[in-house]
Amino acid sequence: MKQAEPIAAVEPQYGLASREQAQLLSGLEFIQAMVEGKFPLPPICKTLQFRLVEIEKGRALFTGVPVFDFYNPLGTVHGGYAATLLDSCMGCAVHTTLPAGVGYTTLEFKVNFVRPLTQETGLVRAEGKVISSGKRVATAEGKLFDERGTLYSHATTTCLVFPI
Amino acid sequence: MKQAEPIAAVEPQYGLASREQAQLLSGLEFIQAMVEGKFPLPPICKTLQFRLVEIEKGRALFTGVPVFDFYNPLGTVHGGYAATLLDSCMGCAVHTTLPAGVGYTTLEFKVNFVRPLTQETGLVRAEGKVISSGKRVATAEGKLFDERGTLYSHATTTCLVFPI
Amino acid sequence: MKQAEPIAAVEPQYGLASREQAQLLSGLEFIQAMVEGKFPLPPICKTLQFRLVEIEKGRALFTGVPVFDFYNPLGTVHGGYAATLLDSCMGCAVHTTLPAGVGYTTLEFKVNFVRPLTQETGLVRAEGKVISSGKRVATAEGKLFDERGTLYSHATTTCLVFPI
Amino acid sequence: MKQAEPIAAVEPQYGLASREQAQLLSGLEFIQAMVEGKFPLPPICKTLQFRLVEIEKGRALFTGVPVFDFYNPLGTVHGGYAATLLDSCMGCAVHTTLPAGVGYTTLEFKVNFVRPLTQETGLVRAEGKVISSGKRVATAEGKLFDERGTLYSHATTTCLVFPI
Repeated sequence: MKQAEPIAAVEPQYGLASREQAQLLSGLEFIQAMVEGKFPLPPICKTLQFRLVEIEKGRALFTGVPVFDFYNPLGTVHGGYAATLLDSCMGCAVHTTLPAGVGYTTLEFKVNFVRPLTQETGLVRAEGKVISSGKRVATAEGKLFDERGTLYSHATTTCLVFPI
Repeated sequence: MKQAEPIAAVEPQYGLASREQAQLLSGLEFIQAMVEGKFPLPPICKTLQFRLVEIEKGRALFTGVPVFDFYNPLGTVHGGYAATLLDSCMGCAVHTTLPAGVGYTTLEFKVNFVRPLTQETGLVRAEGKVISSGKRVATAEGKLFDERGTLYSHATTTCLVFPI
Repeated sequence: MKQAEPIAAVEPQYGLASREQAQLLSGLEFIQAMVEGKFPLPPICKTLQFRLVEIEKGRALFTGVPVFDFYNPLGTVHGGYAATLLDSCMGCAVHTTLPAGVGYTTLEFKVNFVRPLTQETGLVRAEGKVISSGKRVATAEGKLFDERGTLYSHATTTCLVFPI
Repeated sequence: MKQAEPIAAVEPQYGLASREQAQLLSGLEFIQAMVEGKFPLPPICKTLQFRLVEIEKGRALFTGVPVFDFYNPLGTVHGGYAATLLDSCMGCAVHTTLPAGVGYTTLEFKVNFVRPLTQETGLVRAEGKVISSGKRVATAEGKLFDERGTLYSHATTTCLVFPI
């Protein structure tokens, strides 16, 4: 299991790798390059303050800390925050299974909310795992826990896989 | 149909209404008060730059403009952005059907992605409509369009309804 | 709108059209041939006693009468019955949009149960409508009503579309 | 783990336990009584030829053999068959967690189809496991495998839990 280096004193770069760079690498290589800082991190990671911390074939783990800036009118963290982390970890898990020259897109995901996130929850971990991986379609599941292992939400996704 | 006043030159306030304030109002009254600026807007609306623009019983319409800050590593807007707007408009549509003293929470939603959003898409409209509304459970659907009426994503949700 | 002839005194034939027969026809032509009795009806229609009654481009309507044979241990019709009718009408609606030489398979569906079916419900109508139809993927929605128009369950589906 | 007695030479009885009988038992006791033949099996188990074979707290396993009678027009087993077995095993898994006097109903499920079932597939096993179990809501997941352990479909569900 490849564990990401802790992000050090230097501020990470946010942006996008070029499509040409991405096409030469397998999904796992591409994501590892991002984790290692060779490619910039995607902008959404800055906006919603989460990051990829572990990656291996068929599995991806993101962490984040939900804050007041993500609150909905009901006084808890908006469900879109958990949905974003779960979509990320599931899509990323699928991506790790793809060879160079093969891309994917998320067709759909369903997310279940088991208990609300608040700014008191602290760091959360969103873990995605591939369930099935075919030539045209892949599916994955994701679970979002706090540091004590309490489950907050879970999801499944369907991804389309295609040559790029 | 109650259409929101255009948000004027003044910067909207972001924050939360107190639980006591919320409990005295029906769902529709609570949301209208938010639209009219009597209650602060939820923080997520600032972070992801979207807002509620139309509200009536059983229906809510949000708009937003996806920008580069919301991009995923694949070079398009992260699916979590559409999921957040769709969750908002569906939950809000359910909320409009609830009398004072009754609350709700989202149990789950499923979102389908039909085509990718980019920073070229411009303003998008996420419209939520209640499908069924019962004493304990409500369901709703949401669709996200651009200004030409092209569909980008659609969703359904299940909400738990309960006395507060 | 093409409305099916009422199935007459003769018992319908159940079985399968040959793959060769199916490939020469568009989806709509194939289904119309089935409705007109030129092709046998699929065996599941006999087992669960439902049938296709209306078909047009992008829409399909099935009817059935839930009976005691479909009951679950809780004393109502098993959710799998509504799921089967909804899957049928949604898949069929997608099929009507496909030209000859193009097939589809259902990747996933989600079904919401609004109220239980019983043997007192009488005839139910499951109507499927295409939401989006692309070269590789199509989505559709389905709703199941009784004869008074009361909604019992609703669903959405994602189908993969491919050359055959 | 409680494993069901193999159903012997005697034909099982199909029907329904009375509501009064059911209310006196916990979910696990009620289902065990059904497995042991003290209560009749639900009619759907006869119609779609599947049965409950293993039950323990938080988990249920059904088996069935898909046959030609369950075929759709595309020449494979209708998706409603897998949906029915998955709904059964997930709902049953939730039921095992409920004390006497507490019932449940399925609010929604989503099923993913990974590969088609045919009459050549042979015996399939649908295993349901509870993911989260609360006072008002429970969620569960289900997977359907053949005897070699190949995955055919998977699902998640949301159930409402309530006093009866």
